[in-house]
Formats: sequence, C-alpha cells, structure tokens
Amino acid sequence: EYQELQFHTSHGHYWASYSVENRRPDLAGFAVSSTSVYVCLLEGSTGATPSEEMNGTGNLMDFLDEPFPDVGTYEDFHTIDWLREKSRDTDRHRKITTKSKESYWELIKSLLDAWSGWVVMLLIGMLTGTLAGVIDLAVDWMTDLKEGVCLSALYYSREQCCWTSNETTFDDRDKCPQWQKWAELMTGHSEGAGAYVLNYFLYVLWALLFSFLAVSLVRVFAPYACGSGIPEIKTILSGFIIRGYLGKWTLLIKTVTLVLAVSSGLSLGKEGPLVHVACCCGNLFCSLFSKYSKNEGKRREVLSAAAAAGVSVAFGAPIGGVLFSLEEVSYYFPLKTLWRSFFAALVAAFTLRAINPFGNSRLVLFYVEYHTPWYMAELVPFILLGVFGGLWGALFIRGNIAWCRRRKTTLLGKYPVLEVIVITGITAVLAFPNPYTRRSTSELISELFNDCGALESSQLCDYVNNPNMSRPVDDIPDRPAGPGVYSALWQLALALIFKIVITIFTFGMKIPSGLFIPSMAVGAIAGRIVGIAVEQMAYHHHDWIIFKNWCRPGADCVTPGLYAMVGAAACLGGVTRMTVSLVVIMFELTGGLEYIVPLMAAAVTSKWVADAFGKEGIYESHIQLNGYPYLDVRDEFTHRTLATDVMRPRRSEPPLAVLTQDSTTVEDVETLIKDTDYNGFPVVVSRESERLIGFVQRRELTVAIKTARQKQDGVVSSSVVYFTEDNPQVAEACDPQPLKLRRILNLSPFTVTDHTPMETVVDIFRKLGLRQCLVTRSGRLLGIITKKDVLRHMAQMMNQDPESIMFN
Amino acid sequence: EYQELQFHTSHGHYWASYSVENRRPDLAGFAVSSTSVYVCLLEGSTGATPSEEMNGTGNLMDFLDEPFPDVGTYEDFHTIDWLREKSRDTDRHRKITTKSKESYWELIKSLLDAWSGWVVMLLIGMLTGTLAGVIDLAVDWMTDLKEGVCLSALYYSREQCCWTSNETTFDDRDKCPQWQKWAELMTGHSEGAGAYVLNYFLYVLWALLFSFLAVSLVRVFAPYACGSGIPEIKTILSGFIIRGYLGKWTLLIKTVTLVLAVSSGLSLGKEGPLVHVACCCGNLFCSLFSKYSKNEGKRREVLSAAAAAGVSVAFGAPIGGVLFSLEEVSYYFPLKTLWRSFFAALVAAFTLRAINPFGNSRLVLFYVEYHTPWYMAELVPFILLGVFGGLWGALFIRGNIAWCRRRKTTLLGKYPVLEVIVITGITAVLAFPNPYTRRSTSELISELFNDCGALESSQLCDYVNNPNMSRPVDDIPDRPAGPGVYSALWQLALALIFKIVITIFTFGMKIPSGLFIPSMAVGAIAGRIVGIAVEQMAYHHHDWIIFKNWCRPGADCVTPGLYAMVGAAACLGGVTRMTVSLVVIMFELTGGLEYIVPLMAAAVTSKWVADAFGKEGIYESHIQLNGYPYLDVRDEFTHRTLATDVMRPRRSEPPLAVLTQDSTTVEDVETLIKDTDYNGFPVVVSRESERLIGFVQRRELTVAIKTARQKQDGVVSSSVVYFTEDNPQVAEACDPQPLKLRRILNLSPFTVTDHTPMETVVDIFRKLGLRQCLVTRSGRLLGIITKKDVLRHMAQMMNQDPESIMFN
Repeated sequence: EYQELQFHTSHGHYWASYSVENRRPDLAGFAVSSTSVYVCLLEGSTGATPSEEMNGTGNLMDFLDEPFPDVGTYEDFHTIDWLREKSRDTDRHRKITTKSKESYWELIKSLLDAWSGWVVMLLIGMLTGTLAGVIDLAVDWMTDLKEGVCLSALYYSREQCCWTSNETTFDDRDKCPQWQKWAELMTGHSEGAGAYVLNYFLYVLWALLFSFLAVSLVRVFAPYACGSGIPEIKTILSGFIIRGYLGKWTLLIKTVTLVLAVSSGLSLGKEGPLVHVACCCGNLFCSLFSKYSKNEGKRREVLSAAAAAGVSVAFGAPIGGVLFSLEEVSYYFPLKTLWRSFFAALVAAFTLRAINPFGNSRLVLFYVEYHTPWYMAELVPFILLGVFGGLWGALFIRGNIAWCRRRKTTLLGKYPVLEVIVITGITAVLAFPNPYTRRSTSELISELFNDCGALESSQLCDYVNNPNMSRPVDDIPDRPAGPGVYSALWQLALALIFKIVITIFTFGMKIPSGLFIPSMAVGAIAGRIVGIAVEQMAYHHHDWIIFKNWCRPGADCVTPGLYAMVGAAACLGGVTRMTVSLVVIMFELTGGLEYIVPLMAAAVTSKWVADAFGKEGIYESHIQLNGYPYLDVRDEFTHRTLATDVMRPRRSEPPLAVLTQDSTTVEDVETLIKDTDYNGFPVVVSRESERLIGFVQRRELTVAIKTARQKQDGVVSSSVVYFTEDNPQVAEACDPQPLKLRRILNLSPFTVTDHTPMETVVDIFRKLGLRQCLVTRSGRLLGIITKKDVLRHMAQMMNQDPESIMFN
Repeated sequence: EYQELQFHTSHGHYWASYSVENRRPDLAGFAVSSTSVYVCLLEGSTGATPSEEMNGTGNLMDFLDEPFPDVGTYEDFHTIDWLREKSRDTDRHRKITTKSKESYWELIKSLLDAWSGWVVMLLIGMLTGTLAGVIDLAVDWMTDLKEGVCLSALYYSREQCCWTSNETTFDDRDKCPQWQKWAELMTGHSEGAGAYVLNYFLYVLWALLFSFLAVSLVRVFAPYACGSGIPEIKTILSGFIIRGYLGKWTLLIKTVTLVLAVSSGLSLGKEGPLVHVACCCGNLFCSLFSKYSKNEGKRREVLSAAAAAGVSVAFGAPIGGVLFSLEEVSYYFPLKTLWRSFFAALVAAFTLRAINPFGNSRLVLFYVEYHTPWYMAELVPFILLGVFGGLWGALFIRGNIAWCRRRKTTLLGKYPVLEVIVITGITAVLAFPNPYTRRSTSELISELFNDCGALESSQLCDYVNNPNMSRPVDDIPDRPAGPGVYSALWQLALALIFKIVITIFTFGMKIPSGLFIPSMAVGAIAGRIVGIAVEQMAYHHHDWIIFKNWCRPGADCVTPGLYAMVGAAACLGGVTRMTVSLVVIMFELTGGLEYIVPLMAAAVTSKWVADAFGKEGIYESHIQLNGYPYLDVRDEFTHRTLATDVMRPRRSEPPLAVLTQDSTTVEDVETLIKDTDYNGFPVVVSRESERLIGFVQRRELTVAIKTARQKQDGVVSSSVVYFTEDNPQVAEACDPQPLKLRRILNLSPFTVTDHTPMETVVDIFRKLGLRQCLVTRSGRLLGIITKKDVLRHMAQMMNQDPESIMFN
C-alpha cells in the first residue's frame, strides 16, 4: 500500500532519526520499531510528531486509499517481517490451489494468478522502455534548445534536424541550414563577439529556467522525486516501508523533472533516476494484482526486477542490469526473480530499441568498436587509471557526504531552490566557454570512447597524417598528434577539474540526479588524456624497451578510446563499488570479451584503493547519512558480543511489557496499548514462570478487542483475555464473559538464547528478514531484539573499532 | 578434509539409501544424521556395514591424512553445519586481526591471509585453463587417430597436420598429403570397398580401445571419476561431505579418462566433467591454505568459484560460467564469491586462450557470426523448437532415469566394463557410415551453427547458385537447395534419431560423461532441419502472406544456422532447466544482443514444456535417484504441516535421548554414546522440567570424557557431569570429583516451536544451512528435526500430492 503522500508540500526528503525513545521510560524495554521511528525532517515545521504531520490536512490523496487497519499491512516507516509475508503468500497460494479444483473458472483464475508475475514483468519492461525512450528524445531536444532551434520543425533535435537536411555530406554535417543558433535567428549574425555573448546569455538562461522548473516541480508535487533514489530503493527492498516513495506522482514528476534537470546541463546523469522510475512502474503494476499489492515481500521481488529493467534501459545492457540489481540493489533475490528480472530487462531493452531514440538501431548508450588488441604492458596505465578511479571515488564520497551533512545541519537546507539556481548558474557560466563541457555529458563520453576513424572530424582526432599513406577505413597506424589534439588536451584537463568539483556539489540537490554519467565523464576524460599520452610516447619512442616488443613503427598499437573506457569504469567503480555488474555493463557496451581484462583490472584496483579510505560506496554512505534502517549484506560483523548484550530491556531498565496467557483483563491490555507504542507483545504462561508461548501484534490486538467489544456480548473491561488452547474455566458464574484471542497469537515467534553470538543473530536477521526476535534462557523469556537494536549495535561496534575510526 | 578413498577398488559410485534406522528402536527418536546414512552400494560385497568398508585395509592413503578426531571435522557422508562453520571462521578472523597488531610479521601474515582467497582463485583459474587446453588438444588428436595419422608428426591432429602443409588452397584442405587414413597407410589404397571396411574396422577398434581404457582406469583408480559430477557437486556444495570425491586421484583420473571417453566417439561431452575437474582443482588449492582446508563452509565458497571457472573454459563464456554456478550449482553464494568466481572464470578463460587449442585465438567453443537479423514471424518456428527441446528434455530425463534405475537394481550394474564396451561398439558401428555422426560431436555442432558463407565447402551449403549473381563474401541471398542439402537432410534426420536413443543409454555409465554437447547436438540437428525447411519455404513461396512482409526475392532472410543455435539452447534448457545462464552462454558465443530474444523465447518455452512433465532437471533427478541429502532451493514447500508433525520422536516412539545439566554420571554418558549413534544430545535442566539449556556434539563429548578420564584425577564412572555455569556443589565429601563440561556445550542451539509451519522450518534450514533444530513448546524440549527428517518429509508430501503423481 504505497499511498500517495506527496501533497504534503512541506515534506523534505531528508530523514533524521527522530527519537521518541524513553518518552515512557517505564515501558521502553520492549521496543519493536516505534520507539525510534525515522521520520521526515520537516522543513520549517520541526517539533511536530510524525503522526500529526502524516495525517495533516494537506494530504489530498488520503481519502483515495486510506490504509484500512487490516491484518498484514504495515505502518509508514516501519520494517516488514519477511517470514510472515512469505507465509501469508503460501497461504494464499494454498487457497487458490484448493479452489482451483472446484470449477473451471477457478482453475482459469489460478492459472492467471500463476502467470501474473510474467504479465507484470512484461508491463514493467514495456513502460520502462517507453519512458526511457521518451526521456532520451526529450533530453536530446531540450539540450539542443539551449543552443538553438530547428527551423523545419521546432520539435526536432539538432541531429534529427540535420538528418532531414539534403546536404548530407560529412563536412556539412556540423552546420546544416535548418538548424540555427539563437544569435543567428535573432540577429542574423552567426559569428562575432555579439553573437557569442548572446548565445552564452541564452544558454545560461535556458539552463536556469530548466533547473528552476525542475526544482519547483519537485518541491511542490513530489518531494520524493529528488536525488538518485537508489539509496532509498535499497532500503525499501531490504524491507522498509516509505509510503509514496514509489507512487504515481513520484513517477510522473520524476520523469518530467529528470528531463529538465539533465537538459539544464548540470553535472548529473539520468541512469540512477531511471532505476527509480522503473521501480515506480513496478509498484504501479503491482497494484493491478492483489498477489503483489497485498504482500510486501512479493512486491519487493517485482521491484528488484524493475530495478534491473531500469539499468537495462539506462545503458542498453540487460545482463548488466540483472547483475546490478543482484549485486547492488536487491536484498532478497531468489532464482525466480533472476529469471523474471532478465525477462523484464530484455523487454525493456527491446521496447527502447523499437523507439530507437538514438536513431542508430543500437541498444547501447555508448556503442564502441575497437580494432586493435591491447598489450600486457598497457596494464600499467590501466591499473594507474584504477588507482585514479579509487582516489576519485574516495574523494567524491567524502566531499559529497560532508556537503550533504552541511546542507542538513545549516541554513543551506532551507533554500533548496536557491541552491539549485546558484549551482546551475555556476555550471552554465563555466561550462559554455569549453566545448567539452558545453555539450551534454553523454555526448562527451561518447566522443571520448570513440576510436579515431578515418572519417572522424573531432578535434581529438586531429593527427598529422602521413601523406604517403593510403587510408584504410579501420586500423589507422599511430600518428603524431596535431595542434588540435594538444588544444583539446588542455580543454579536457580544465573540464576534468571542473567536473570533479561541480559534481560533488550537485549530487544530493533537490532535483533528480544520477552520478553514473558524471563519474564516467571524469574517468573518461582522465583516461583519454592518459591514452593520448601513452600513444604519443609510443609513437615518438618506438625504441624504448617497453614499447619495442609490441609497437613497431607504422603500427596501430594504442587506442586512446579504450583508455577512456577503462578510466570511466574505474571512476564508476570507485564511487559505487560495483565490480561484476560494472564489468558486464562495459562488456555489453563493447560486445567483446577482448577488453574484459583491462576493465576488470581497473575496476578491481579502483575498488581496493577506494575501500582503503572507507568501506562504503556512495549509496551506503547516503543510507547512513539519512539514517535508514538498512542491514547491509556485505558488512561482516566480527565482534564478540552476545544476544544478551543487545537485547532490551537492559539491566537498569524495567522488565519487558508482556501479556500472560490467562490472567490479563481487557482493561489491562487496553492500558498497555495506550501506554506503549510497541509493535507487539510476547505472551507468557505467567509472570512468575515467564515461559514464552507466543507473540501478538499490537495492530491485531487492537482490532480484535475493538471488534469484540462491539460485537461480542458480555465482553467488558474486566473480562479476562485468554490465549490458551483449552476452553477457559470460568471459576464463578458471576465472572464476566472471557475473551479468547488464541487465533491472533503467533505461536511460532522466533527465539534465540541469550548466549547466541551477535554474528549469528545478525546473520539470522539478514537471511530471514526478521523484524524482531525474542531472547530466552532455558525457556524463560528474557528480552527482545529488534532490527533497529541490531542496527544500533552494529553502528556502536563500528565506532568503537579503532581501524574504522582511522579510515572514516 | 577430502581424504583419498579411491583405492577402495571395489567401490562403485552409486548410492543407495542404506538404512540402519531402527537398529535400536528404543533410541531411534533422536536421529541426527547417522540413522539413515547414505553409503556406497558396494558391488559384489553388500552386507558389510559402511564403517567396516570405510576402514577397510584397501585404503592405502589413510595413513597420510587420517582425520584426527578434532573439533570441527565431520565424518564422511555427513552434513555440515553452516552456521557453525561461519562462526568458526569469524573466530579465526578475529584471532588474526588481534594478532596482527602485535608485530609486523603478524601483520604481513594477516595481509597474506586476506589475499589468500584471490591467490586461490588465480591458481584455480590457471590450472583449470591449462587442463582444459590439454584436454582439448588431446581429444582433437585422439579423435582423429581413429581415422588416420599424421605422417609429418605423429602427435599432430588432422587440422594441425594440414596447417603445416604447403598446399593451403581451400579445395585441398580436406585431403592434405601428410594426413593418411589407416587404410591408405596400410594397404596403399585410399578408395574402394576394402579400404572402407578396413577404416570402418579400425575406427570401431580404436573406439573400443579408448573406452575400455577409460572404464578400466575409472574402475581401478577412481570410481568417483565417472559421470558428469554435477549432481554430486551440487550435493557437496549444499553441505554434504563425500571424502575423496574432489581428491587428487579423481582429478588425475577424470582428466585422463575424459579424454579417452570423448575420443572414443561416445555420445557424451566434456563440459559437465570439466566442472568436476575444476572443482577438484579448487579443492586441491584449498589444501594450501588452512583458512579453506579447515573450514568446510569457506571451502565451499572456493568450490562455487571453481565451478564457474569450469563452465568458463568449457564454453569460453566467463559470465555464463558465473551465472551457471549461481543458478545451477551453488547453494551459498555471497557477493564476495560472485566477484571471486568472476575473477577465476576470467583467469581460466584467458589461460585457455593463451594455450589456444582451437588455433583461432577464439575463446569460445562455437564461434559464430550471423549477418542477417531475425524477423518477428520467425518466433513461431523458434517457439516450436522450444517445444521440441522441452519434449526432448522430458523424454531424456525419464528414459535416462528409468535406465539408471534398472542399472542399479538388476544384474546390469554388475558389469560396468561390459556395458561400456557394448555401448561403444554399437555407437561406433552405427556412427561410422553417417558422416554427421562419424566426426566428433562438437565439430558437428560447429558446422550446424555456421552460416553458409561463400567459401563454405560443407554439403549443407550445397545450394544452387544463380550464375548471374556476383558473389559477395557475406550476405548471400536465399537460394534453392541443391542435391547435397537434400541428402544431408536425410543423414541429419538419421543422426538425430541415433543421437536421441544412444544418449539416453550413454549418460550415467561408469566413464566421465557430460550431456551438454549431446543435448546441444540433438537440438542443433533439429534446428538446422527446421531452418532449412523454413528457408526453402520462404524461397519458393515469397508471395505467401507470412513471408511477404520481410522476405523479398533475392534477399537473405532466413539463417538456418541460427535455428540450429536456438534448437541447441532449447534442448539444453529442456534437459538442465537452466534459463538465464543458458541464454548468457549462448549470448557469449554470438557476442551480440541481437539474437537474445529468439534464444530467450526458446529457452523459456522449453523450460515450461519440460516442467509440465516433471519439475526436476536431469541433475536433480540424479540427485534424487541416488538419494543424496540435497535440499533444493527451488522447490517450494506449500503444505500445511507443522514442526510437530515432522519432529522425532513421534508419538509412538520412546522419548528423546537427552542429558541433564547436573545429574548424569560419566557412566550414563558413556552408555548413551555406546548405545546410540546420534550426532549430538540436547542438555536439559532436569528430566522433569525438560527446559532446554544447550546441545552437545557426540564427538566433543567423547573426546572430553576420554581426555578427562586420562588426565583429570578423580574422574571415575560415577562422577557427575555438570553443564551448569556455577561451580557444582559437592554434597558429601566422599562423592567423586565432578566433571565440568560447560565449555563443550553449545549454549545457543537453534530452536523452533512445535507450532512453526514446516514451510518456515524448511526456509530456515535452507537459508541458515542448519544440520538440526530443536523443537520446544513454552520452553520445554519436545523433539528434534534434522535435515534428513526435513528431506524425508518433503519427499513424503511430494508423493501424496496428486498433481505431482500425475506428472511424475
């Protein structure tokens, strides 16, 4: 039930650990998940309790699907119980199987139910692919709109405009008459200082307009639409509920503002947000089938597949997408989900190809084809690029997190619109003069990746040709660099510094922003510079011992484009700490196993180097910064603590709030519910023996008592609540009617002993996706451990560890 | 501690559920894993108990590494406890981290330890790649040896022989003078009936010789070397101990006999056994590092990666290999293993390429390049091929399992050598006359996959050329089939029937045998036939409505090679039920996303069709046939049973064998150990209260009591064994010295309540890799559930299910 909450216009998207712990210290011992609830830090209206804000009058959509206080739903910002969801799904499945034997209609319904998973995947793939295509087309058009307009059809991007031109020779491709720059259109002059200034001015103006629109839409309609979304999706997939994060409004606004944000020329990409968009699509189609909409566990399987579809269309890499979902995003990824993710990713990729936004029938974002193999000696620069990527990753994460923390704690966070405007202004003003930053970042990467063919007109391919040489189309031998290459190198170096600095400040603003593309751009620029350096060194020093063996004069031995690609992989790896999925995405771009070793070497080096400065990637860092309850599968817990050190109540605290199986009255229960905000209560035989018999959910207890009071005669405040199996023996005739509640009692609560090592407890929480776990000793109930207790303890232990302090 | 047991020359490799259950009916209630031990069915010497055989005098290697009755080792044919292994590794890690702060030497040692995982991967990759290369070269040479010999150098295969020939024109490639057929060499005549008969006779003779050698080597030196090995590896990876299955002898003998078996021309492939070989390499290198050799959990991580390396070299598909390991083989596959598997797979693939056994610098087994896209209408034949693949898969599994069951239960199993000889004889006699079966199966598949280029000399490419047409190298338009194609079609049809029948009888014989290649061959033949049919239909009926849109006259619209590939994928999918890894392997063969949709459509169809006839793939079927304790991750358990229905003791059985915390004497314990063969005993507060306090392993109890009796004064038979924390109070001075055993007590045994649904219990066993689990109710110990109880219950439930009876 991801309900729409986006009309809370005062909502920000940052989270703070708003602790209501110890509000009632006498009952704080038994905390399931409410005692330390994670609430939106409300901009300008702090101090209100979360529930007040949640039910605020601003919520226009509330009446549409107010969550019925039903068994099996969760409250917002709470953690789901995976085991319970799974068991509910099995029940559902069992019911359908039994029913299907009754009639043909039921059989058909059961078959439809079995197929609904594949249908959802098909729909997700198709919608994601379509949206990605539309976004690509719109971004193309609007990016070009900053510089000029197509006269033959206003809705054509520059490339489309010049396609339809009759003058299709290569030299004229860059200046086709239908496409006019603003200055030319407005003043008639296309050259000169005046035209340059006018173009410059309009470029900045368009950029400011786009980003203002983007940030305003986000602020007003869907605060959840900002950022890359991947940290939140990781948290949601691990079993947390954030209502509205994957809602219809978020989908709509994120799609629109993504186009605006990318077109504004800010240093951000569309890849991360596309994953969020795909997950919104997944959530949307989940609501069509009760199998998925009513089960938070099943819903998350669909969302995992949707994430794969998102990456699949972002890069045109379906296998890479599946592995990205598996390695980076998902929490619970059974084999069934693997097959379905693959299906969804393929459908999405082919839908995108059918739309053909790049106009070249290629699936992939950066299609490259190299003609030369790489040589062993080149591993040295490749590994150096890996080191650079790792350093960049560490620097970026630290800088970005420091900046985001400042944004959260100082006045800066109060003026998100102003921040976006200022950063856009700075970006546009600095970007325009340099041709490598003026164009869109993906075009830049594409040019840097490309090998210099015979027909390449780029400045980067301005080599001095040997006039005696015949010119084959492929496989041009190494040549000395011309003046164009040298000036390009300077411009690239400036672009590199600019990108490094501006990206740190851009990621995390209140607009949709991915960091795949900026990271890749940084790496690609550095890689291309290194590549050209190595190429020229090899050309001018054939006789050096390192070149002698593999680089004869007149041979084509160094491919600078490959260096750019390796650099891009290294930087992306340093920031995100992906390895396998990264290499596979890159492999799908080139389509050959040939270059896997350089990519692998760079990716692994960059991961190692970056890990030396801090174990967490950018997504985990943001999760931690925002205080999401995310239990990372990768963190190894190696401390010697036991369950007894973590469980509540602590020694100094009052005992657990428990119910007894046959001696609590309705009134007692009601008082307990009123006085505490725990999610559930253990039921014991008696307060003396403390032998555990089960666990009852707060929500179900409330509903059951309310219903009983209304509908069941004789149930009054002094009625005794029974959880026993046998019929309660009413001692005297005048006693009030007892209330039997065994049916809402969970008779198989998860228990560990107090001596269980915490590493085992952490493992159990991770693998079984528990929400809470009871602690016993020789059958006596001692305490409770919730997921948040585990997370708090892990954070505590981490901070005690001298090594991690050293590095973090 | 995979110890070498292969010198038991009387061992077969088949397993029977040799039940020693109820030997002591009074104690049968508490069965950890010994009561129903899975033992080798000894050929010719049934009746002996497993332990007698295991310690038999034939075991020459025993003295080398007799497993010391140490804490943390497991007995043969027992299940490991994953949680315990993990916790032991954490202890080890903690110790090293603490030590590393003491001195530089320890720091270096700790760094080496951290890197040892990557070192092992590197070594595995290199050895696996080398072995695969050697196997490829040897198979090539020996396969050709059946037909003739290279005169210039005896150790050259035919292709290598003709490379060195000066006459390198294409027409002469098939008959180079250095290569002589046997008849030509011996009689001087290369043509005529006499020469044919002599060649025929020698072909059969060589085949018989090779297979006789193979089966003899397996029988005498390494009975575990037979079969594909994948079912056993799946079982081992899920946490079962089979000593010697991955030993040095198995590695050596499997490598040698694999070459012999494949060269003999039997209908089997080397892909499955290569996975076994790679896992043997993995196990070999594990023994270099105590981190892996002393921890069965960590060892299995290495083996998972080794399996990936095996598939990587089998097909030249590193990504496919990793996904195969993930999807098909592995049980516990953390992200760390994903990265390492990928590394091992890459190293293996590049080592193989460095050896370059195919002489074409290609990594992949079947390199293909198609020039034509596919059309939507072609999905119909592709899906039909998927249906065929599914039917073949179902037929093969049923036929093969029925035959293997007959082999196990009848006299047939007693004469494995004879069986191999007879099947080889039949195969060779029937294979020689047909050119498509005479050559090696991988050559056949390679030819079927290939598109007919302009220079293709194959009979399958005998199309009628239009004399007016210029001949471009690629992209030849569709042409009418010539007489060669028609005769090839007949021969292919015969080959198809032959392969289908003979493969059912071949897989499972006592020689190394994989079924990837035979399955792919069946699919490729069927696919090529369908492809040629569609091609000719399209050529002759351009005007049919279905061809009109996409197949103009003179266009190249149908690629029969692609149909062969799709058919191969479908048949392989039907037999193994792989999906994603299958498509990825095929994708890596073609290297383009272009053909993923046809492959995906066929693979998914074939899986669905085959699943309709039985949910299990060939590996799962063999696991079940052999009664391995394998808990499949994919089986969904949806029955309504509770833990109480599964736990031992049953209602009619005597109570659990338990120890009390402070009232059992040493003598009582010794009696209990002597009288039962359970793996461990729960410890309770007292027999009356039955409150559980812990679990003690049989092995540790035995060692502790033995040591105490020898070394600790005053411990006699009447000493009381204490498991309590406090010092036991010796009531009277004359009481014997008590024995404190709390240190061997596991204080955190895993418990569930009796009301826990079995689906949850199954989930817990799977995800946490438990060996046993205690059942309690309100803190009182009721019973125990072991992994084998779970498996037995699942099998029972499966058989009760009317649906599965219908289909199985």
